[in-house]
Parts: sequence; C-alpha cells; structure tokens
Amino acid sequence: MARPLILITNDDGITAPGIKALIEVAQELGDVVIVAPDSPQSAMGHAITISSPLRVHKSKAFPNLEAYECSGTPVDCVKLAKHVVLPGRVADLCVSGINHGSNASINIIYSGTLSAAMEASLEGIPSIGFSLLDYSYDADFEPAKPYIKSIMQYVLANGLAKGNLLNVNIPKLPLDEIQGIKLCRQADARWEEEFSEATDPRGQKYYWLTGRFVNNDLSEDTDIWALEKGYISVVPSHHDLTNYDAIASLRDMEQELPTLAADQK
Amino acid sequence: MARPLILITNDDGITAPGIKALIEVAQELGDVVIVAPDSPQSAMGHAITISSPLRVHKSKAFPNLEAYECSGTPVDCVKLAKHVVLPGRVADLCVSGINHGSNASINIIYSGTLSAAMEASLEGIPSIGFSLLDYSYDADFEPAKPYIKSIMQYVLANGLAKGNLLNVNIPKLPLDEIQGIKLCRQADARWEEEFSEATDPRGQKYYWLTGRFVNNDLSEDTDIWALEKGYISVVPSHHDLTNYDAIASLRDMEQELPTLAADQK
Repeated sequence: MARPLILITNDDGITAPGIKALIEVAQELGDVVIVAPDSPQSAMGHAITISSPLRVHKSKAFPNLEAYECSGTPVDCVKLAKHVVLPGRVADLCVSGINHGSNASINIIYSGTLSAAMEASLEGIPSIGFSLLDYSYDADFEPAKPYIKSIMQYVLANGLAKGNLLNVNIPKLPLDEIQGIKLCRQADARWEEEFSEATDPRGQKYYWLTGRFVNNDLSEDTDIWALEKGYISVVPSHHDLTNYDAIASLRDMEQELPTLAADQK
Repeated sequence: MARPLILITNDDGITAPGIKALIEVAQELGDVVIVAPDSPQSAMGHAITISSPLRVHKSKAFPNLEAYECSGTPVDCVKLAKHVVLPGRVADLCVSGINHGSNASINIIYSGTLSAAMEASLEGIPSIGFSLLDYSYDADFEPAKPYIKSIMQYVLANGLAKGNLLNVNIPKLPLDEIQGIKLCRQADARWEEEFSEATDPRGQKYYWLTGRFVNNDLSEDTDIWALEKGYISVVPSHHDLTNYDAIASLRDMEQELPTLAADQK
C-alpha cells in the first residue's frame, strides 16, 4: 500500500514547537504536507478571510519538507491546502496541532486548531485536532507522541464516520502517568470573562479580554473529567449544531407564529 | 411587567441596514442596547480577540439610543456587552442580525451573526440570529419584520432551553408569499471553494476565496428545503459538537490504543 498522505496544520503558527512534534510523529506514518498560518491564529474559531487576498509560499521553517505558510486563518489554510497546494491529490488524514493549551469542552468553538480539523472533515478528510494541556512555548510534547501516533494509526486504519473529527486533549503528565484513552462527550463548561481595563498613551480607554474557565458539569463521561483523572480525552465531534430535542419541543411555533405575524401586517 | 432588555448585535457592522431593521422591531417589544462591530465582520465565526486590545465607544449611528460600537469580532461584542456595557443588568434576549445573506445549513459555523448569538446563549441569554436571503446592501427587510417580531415575542414569552439559540433564515419574498415557519434541522450542505488567483502590482501571487454552495441533503426536514419552499426556517441550535452516536462506535479505541502506545515507548 502507498504511504498515506497526511495534511498538517495548526493555529499557533508554523514556527510553534507543537507542530514540529506533530510532524515528527506523522512522518513515521506517511508522507506529510504542511500548510499552516505564518503567524499565531489562536482563538480564530471558524473564521475565514473573504475581504482580503491570501498569500501562500514555501516555508523556511521546514526547508526539507513540503511545507507552506499562509497569511490567513487555520480554516483558510485547509481550504488553500486542498485547492492551491494539493490539487489532484487528496489527503488521507488531516491532523491539526499540537496545540499549546487545552481545547477541551467549549474551547472547541473558539479554537483555530479544531476549526481547521473541522474544515478538513467537511471536505471529507478524516481529521484529528491534538492539544496538550500546557500553554507554555517550551511545553514537553514527548510523552504525548506515542499516543498521538496510535490515534493516527487507528484513524488511518479504520477511518471516521463522514463529517467527523476527533478532539483529542492530552494531560500534562509523564508518559507513565497517562492512564490511557477515554471516549467522552464535550463537558458543558464555559469561560467566565473579565476584561482588564486600561488607558493607552493617548488617553483612550481600552479593554483586554481575559477569563476563567468554569465547569459545573461534573459527570464522569466528559472530557474535563477524563483529563483530571489523567486520561487522554477523545471527543468525536461534528459540524451539526442542530439541537434535535428542541425541534420537537418548539413545534407549537409553527402553528402559533404565522397567526401572530398576520395580526401584525 | 417591566419592559424586557434586548441586546442587539450583528456581523455586518453597526451601519448596516439589517441591524437598523432589527432595532426597529425590537423597540416595539422592549428596551434596546446595541453593541455591534465598528466594521464588517462577516465570516469571523467564533473568533475572539486575545492578542490585541479592544475599544468600545458610544456610536453615532444611533445617537438617540444606547448604542455602542466595538473594534472586535461579533463574539467580542457580546462579551463586551455583558462585562463593560451592561454590568449589573442582564439582557432578557439577544438578537443578532438581520444578516445580509443566508446563514442556513453549514453557514452557521462561519457566521459572525450566529456566533454572536451562540455566545449570548453560552452566557445564559436566550438568543436568536436572523438572516435574510439577500446579500445586497439595500435588501428589503420590511416583509421579514412581522415574523421577526413574532419570533421574538415567542422567545420572550416562552424562553429557550438552556444554552440554546435559534438560527432563523428568511426567504427573499414579499410578505404574502412567505408560507409560514418551519422547525428544521441544519442541512448537511457545504461550500465547494474555489480560489481566484491573481498577481499584485509588485508581481506577487495572491488568492481570493470564492465558492459555490453545494447541497446534496434533499430530505424535507432541512432548513434549505424549507427556504426553497418559501418558509422561514428555524433551526434550534446549541454549542455541543459531540457526535454521541460516534462515541459508542469508537469504544474499541479505549482498549486498543494504550497497548499500541505502550509498544511504541
């Protein structure tokens, strides 16, 4: 069998140590193509660039690899990978990360790392977002590597359901203390924001976003629970935001509202 | 009963005609506070601004209202609304839009309009994103108004389940041709991107994102189907991206992978 083609991206930018670690693992399993942002793009969510042009060029970060850096968001990178870098080739797997910091729970919707993986899944490419629970630049990615390799091997061998991605978070622990892998749901946690207020040199007020992660979802099937217990959390995720339960409970709107609207004509 | 407090935002920017139409409807139902981007922020998804400061100031767009414009993304606006504009007050409802153009189906994940509504829902505020299927600046929002008012009245009276928002899309039709309201699921459609490639005055290549909406999900319970039949589509949505069905089908990973990882130590 031909070596699989693995597309690699991230949101911390092509020079971040996390993507280097991910490339090292992926090279053991297949041929790699890297298309990553040329600057940090954390917390860009599923943003795409529609009002300005995008640039793509060969990256000096990995001179011996097929590596490109792109001026846009992580999702832009995946779109450019498919249409500009890889026309005629289809990636067998897309991996995004390794993110410096957690993308568990609600972080999935803010994360450029996971949004890039989701974009690949929309393109029909099985995809995985990897994050290590260590925000520091010089985080130690070594203990995560055997598990990351195993998860990639599993997905290369078994695929994923159409439109699915895996949100994988790895505790900051030595390899021997990692308890294994837990399939989980996304914990229903959130950020409690604060803004630090200050005044710039010209006397104008400004605000800087900061926040505190708050989790009141304490059951034992969540990613946050698994991570606290030393497990790697794996949340199968998708792009369908429909709340199916709520459709039934809102059926009365269909009858009630047209009448209301008619009254207001 | 005190008049409800309605928070209004959008992604087309505070000067867009769509938000003006939404404000006009909301003023009939409650007291309004507007916190919207000072520039167009379409397709920003759930991006937040973490690496630069944010500015908020009273807007001249609506001099007689409590209206603020903000330098960040739509999601930033909602966070700033809660913590900087409204401390001590809690909005009873958040409405976002009216977006110039469709946010049906997969557009929900790219849309700043819907991401703002989702952020409000995360804060515990019932929220609704409204979009009209007309991308033009001078779109006619009048036919949508009676329905928008009815939907807002319904949500003010009945609330929404915790963490829920409604994704409401309105066909570009005269009021008499709108067939009513349909509760729907998000159609499993996607964008087939293309990039237009060109060369800038300095001889450097650039790419501009463009695309074509492709829907192969033809069943009659989707938002795209409803809109094509002349209905207003209402998709109850939430922030849980977990694919619960996939958790069960991937259970074997939990057993298989730790062994694999151990072999690779």
